[in-house]
Amino acid sequence: MLKVNEYFDGQVKSVGFESAGDHASVGVMAPGEYTFGTAAPERMTVVKGALIVKLPGHVDWETYNAGDDFEVPGDSSFNVKVLETTAYLCDYL
Amino acid sequence: MLKVNEYFDGQVKSVGFESAGDHASVGVMAPGEYTFGTAAPERMTVVKGALIVKLPGHVDWETYNAGDDFEVPGDSSFNVKVLETTAYLCDYL
Repeated sequence: MLKVNEYFDGQVKSVGFESAGDHASVGVMAPGEYTFGTAAPERMTVVKGALIVKLPGHVDWETYNAGDDFEVPGDSSFNVKVLETTAYLCDYL
Repeated sequence: MLKVNEYFDGQVKSVGFESAGDHASVGVMAPGEYTFGTAAPERMTVVKGALIVKLPGHVDWETYNAGDDFEVPGDSSFNVKVLETTAYLCDYL
């Protein structure tokens, strides 16, 4: 079951799926600044492009390039700045 | 501009985008067998899961796992078998 989702007026679009019992999504973020809330903990992996991220409880922004990943606790939120349209994988942990 | 596409009765869904002048898409394939035609040459990278692929002019099927990629010539077609739902990145070359 593949589920298309759109967020932030279509500036972020994703396809959610289940694979081998894992829940995940791949998606794309257009340039902009976003705050994402998490329900479950998740691991974000940059697939193409770059995300500039401020994790919950952090003061500094950090840049993640293609192949890099970061984890976000459940029931929290994180901030993302996107300069070039960027593709990501989100694994729900 | 993020463009959602669906193929094969929704068994394959993708989000197309342009980043730094490159055209690309990320998508997900549900289990099944598919034949994809190419217009431009493209590079497919497995993001999560695995694709079993027969490239144009090849006799044998080859398995590509997460992180692996393969290139397909333009104006051709290739065959894919998917056992577990699999996410991919497609770069148009």
